Amino acid sequence: MEFIKHYTKIIEDQIDDLNFPKEPENLYDPLRYFMKLGGKRMRPILTLLSAELFGLDKSKVLNSALAVEVFHNFSLIHDDIMDEAPLRRNQQTVHTKWNVNNAILSGDVLFVKAYELLAAQELGDLRRTLQLFNQTAIEVCEGQQMDMDFESRSDVTIEEYTEMIRLKTSVLLGCALELGAIAANASKEDCQHIYDFGLNVGIAFQIQDDILDLYADPDKFGKQVGGDVMSNKKTMLYLEAQRHATAEQLETLKQLYNWTNLDEKVAKTRQLFDQIGAKAICEASMDTYYTKAKEAIAKISVSEDRKKVLLQLGDYLLIRQH
Amino acid sequence: MEFIKHYTKIIEDQIDDLNFPKEPENLYDPLRYFMKLGGKRMRPILTLLSAELFGLDKSKVLNSALAVEVFHNFSLIHDDIMDEAPLRRNQQTVHTKWNVNNAILSGDVLFVKAYELLAAQELGDLRRTLQLFNQTAIEVCEGQQMDMDFESRSDVTIEEYTEMIRLKTSVLLGCALELGAIAANASKEDCQHIYDFGLNVGIAFQIQDDILDLYADPDKFGKQVGGDVMSNKKTMLYLEAQRHATAEQLETLKQLYNWTNLDEKVAKTRQLFDQIGAKAICEASMDTYYTKAKEAIAKISVSEDRKKVLLQLGDYLLIRQH
Repeated sequence: MEFIKHYTKIIEDQIDDLNFPKEPENLYDPLRYFMKLGGKRMRPILTLLSAELFGLDKSKVLNSALAVEVFHNFSLIHDDIMDEAPLRRNQQTVHTKWNVNNAILSGDVLFVKAYELLAAQELGDLRRTLQLFNQTAIEVCEGQQMDMDFESRSDVTIEEYTEMIRLKTSVLLGCALELGAIAANASKEDCQHIYDFGLNVGIAFQIQDDILDLYADPDKFGKQVGGDVMSNKKTMLYLEAQRHATAEQLETLKQLYNWTNLDEKVAKTRQLFDQIGAKAICEASMDTYYTKAKEAIAKISVSEDRKKVLLQLGDYLLIRQH
Repeated sequence: MEFIKHYTKIIEDQIDDLNFPKEPENLYDPLRYFMKLGGKRMRPILTLLSAELFGLDKSKVLNSALAVEVFHNFSLIHDDIMDEAPLRRNQQTVHTKWNVNNAILSGDVLFVKAYELLAAQELGDLRRTLQLFNQTAIEVCEGQQMDMDFESRSDVTIEEYTEMIRLKTSVLLGCALELGAIAANASKEDCQHIYDFGLNVGIAFQIQDDILDLYADPDKFGKQVGGDVMSNKKTMLYLEAQRHATAEQLETLKQLYNWTNLDEKVAKTRQLFDQIGAKAICEASMDTYYTKAKEAIAKISVSEDRKKVLLQLGDYLLIRQH
């Protein structure tokens, strides 16, 4: 997927051009810092690819694409406060490098910046653009709230968990793609299909993320393998294991919850999950969502040839790295 | 100003109709609570009055008006976290009644709600509406940052302070009024004039607020008289006193800064300010801004008769209660 580097570069250049004001520096320095922490910039790239899918040059949707990336970064800054996360991409989070107040207020300004970019997007119906973006932003907040609420609950269902990841992470992929389609004046049906593609790829991707946390190759994985297990996070893997466990296995799972030796906890949990077959169940679920995604893109009324890039990207994102 | 009650009622009814979703309740309960804490709803009323000034019925700008009120409440929820304020209108603030995380995230959702209302405003150019609102939102954040920065500085100038209150509180009054004008398709010049009216009334009002903190009738004042002095807040009153003090008076001012008996501190500070004439200087400054406001409204190309309500409102807000 060499072309991704080229698209990432386009987005990085746009980020360089954001030109935050010099002052108040406690407001804008955190944004200059955080927006440059890197990443693949996958969400704005989706906007560019969607515009191209519908025959519009990517140069015409740079503002919408950047709005998505800026919004994503706003939500990361605020989420990092709420999750008390010290690091993001191995660098200090904003509330750690500055303080909580700076992180709240810088985040707020960045949020407005996203709307400035939307208002600067010239092609496509502005009201529809705004409605889609607003709905997505609200859903992302709802997903974050559900995620926080789950921490203190022991009765989270697979359905609730799926709804949480749909809201917290997947709708933004759908939104990123649909913004490109709206700018290209795609039909309402096609807008819905490309949105559904992103939404389902997003859910599949999040499930994969849950699997990788425990099953990734430690040499290739960017973070500590087993982190979710150590922090007792109720991931899809955990919930499926819980659901399919025998009474005896459930008892072991409960014991492991309070295990103090973390390395042992991770090893034993993986052993238990393997016995239950939780990984295979999650992979099947992943496949189901990815199939839905491919069904959605199949319905789009453009030539199959044009769809190849997005399908390749889907394969790339959802390749079995585990 | 009996008519204000009628206009406040209109806004309260709109707030009742906001209909936040039931769940996640930790996200929406704080908003149901905070939006009902009351207040005169002066900002959205300005939007209604501005629409009427330019010949548009107030029923046509309810969404814009409510967007302003919703944005204002969002900024209060986040400011209260940053200022560590336990109370707002004598009720618990959101981060006190719930927690900081709930206050951050509920605030974020409320912010999106403001944009939903803007997107639902049918009359007037949506792009201009959005640009004005975005600019205002960014300025309000910049003002809050300046205000926080001032706490740790001893060299704040009157110019910087004026810029801070312009950004933190006054631009939103200008925005509220201009949103009504945009919906009514007022000319660009008239939009600027009504904005300038609000901006200057806002600055004058904030200076009055600074004066009232020390000089209000305790029986009529909603909060503790002298609160700014007790917390060593650098208000316009303080900065003017500092600027016009003799070397000896400056020395007394410095001593009072660390005075431990708070009642004595307030009494002695007022005595000192009286000697310096700080109150009269601030009142003159207030008058200057209110005169600018009246000059701006004089330039608007509608009959003088129509302007009366806004001028009466200005007099009402800036009447010498001190």
